[in-house]
Amino acid sequence: MMQLQFWFDFASTYSYPAAMRIESVAKAHEVDIEWNAFLLGPIFRAQGWHDSPFNIYPVKGRYMWRDMERICQSLAIPFCRPSVFPRNGTLAARIVTRFNGADWLPNFVKTVYRANFGDDRDIATATVVGDCLRELGIDATAIIAAATATDSKALFRRQTRRAIDQNIFGAPTFVANDELFWGNDRLEQAVRWHRGRQ
Amino acid sequence: MMQLQFWFDFASTYSYPAAMRIESVAKAHEVDIEWNAFLLGPIFRAQGWHDSPFNIYPVKGRYMWRDMERICQSLAIPFCRPSVFPRNGTLAARIVTRFNGADWLPNFVKTVYRANFGDDRDIATATVVGDCLRELGIDATAIIAAATATDSKALFRRQTRRAIDQNIFGAPTFVANDELFWGNDRLEQAVRWHRGRQ
Repeated sequence: MMQLQFWFDFASTYSYPAAMRIESVAKAHEVDIEWNAFLLGPIFRAQGWHDSPFNIYPVKGRYMWRDMERICQSLAIPFCRPSVFPRNGTLAARIVTRFNGADWLPNFVKTVYRANFGDDRDIATATVVGDCLRELGIDATAIIAAATATDSKALFRRQTRRAIDQNIFGAPTFVANDELFWGNDRLEQAVRWHRGRQ
Repeated sequence: MMQLQFWFDFASTYSYPAAMRIESVAKAHEVDIEWNAFLLGPIFRAQGWHDSPFNIYPVKGRYMWRDMERICQSLAIPFCRPSVFPRNGTLAARIVTRFNGADWLPNFVKTVYRANFGDDRDIATATVVGDCLRELGIDATAIIAAATATDSKALFRRQTRRAIDQNIFGAPTFVANDELFWGNDRLEQAVRWHRGRQ
């Protein structure tokens, strides 16, 4: 069975609850997940946005932060509005891309998201990303070295290119048999679509 | 019991499925609805947008039209991508504001939405809005005259002002005890919130 594509940016707020709950939703429907980190920055810049739309449009931003509080409360996951937003998730995203398919990957993704949106830690730094790896008992130095090698950087650029080629414009996005579903709200619908169209 | 506020713009695509299904969702939870038409135009212009964001950002627009097809199909309501988008819903919105609380109002709202998004009719015109009223057995001439009187126009400007004052930035929006919920997806959550916090 093909995997359901899950596309996320570590800076993306609504990707956090999606990452925390996707495994249980997918498991309940016997769907496998392909974990795809990418960067929204190049996509936003192509639209003329040089910051998060939640910063550019403060009324929308205020709504989003309140909405995040409500969502995280309902899922019983920690939430603390980050003191810096958006944080650059490039290093963590390179690791996801380089080590795609590793059995520790979903836990790494969730640990990084929790560091950013639960503990207000600066996931842009190798120190925090390294802590997230060590927390899982993984050799942080080796992983970070591999993920920042030239070929890994090229691999990650191709990954963001792949997102653009699939017409992805926001995060989280789910791709089920070439159909796009945008937003944490749409996870269940994407899983159903993926099941129904196999 | 206070009413759940339902805010919609007749040009707003996702407000169409919300309008078509809100009565059954609200009834199932014994919640009363306040039907509030407003204009997104002034709110968008304040953000520097002089067109629908779905036209300004074509990739997002393409996604939205496909998403609308899926949503309308799943609700078994007619959908035909309008040949003109967005259409100006000012006249219909003035009628909603002037005749708020009338027993025919929900049916009028649904008839106008169906004309725009189901039948590709130009709801910006008094002819089509009049047809929508006559379809419900209502004296179109009298209603349109009343809704376009000077005091009705002022009433409607205050209504859009009220939306802005409540930090509404998109449509559909539901307001449940001062909490905002944005998007057709959030109707159920808004209704639950409204019930839980009375």
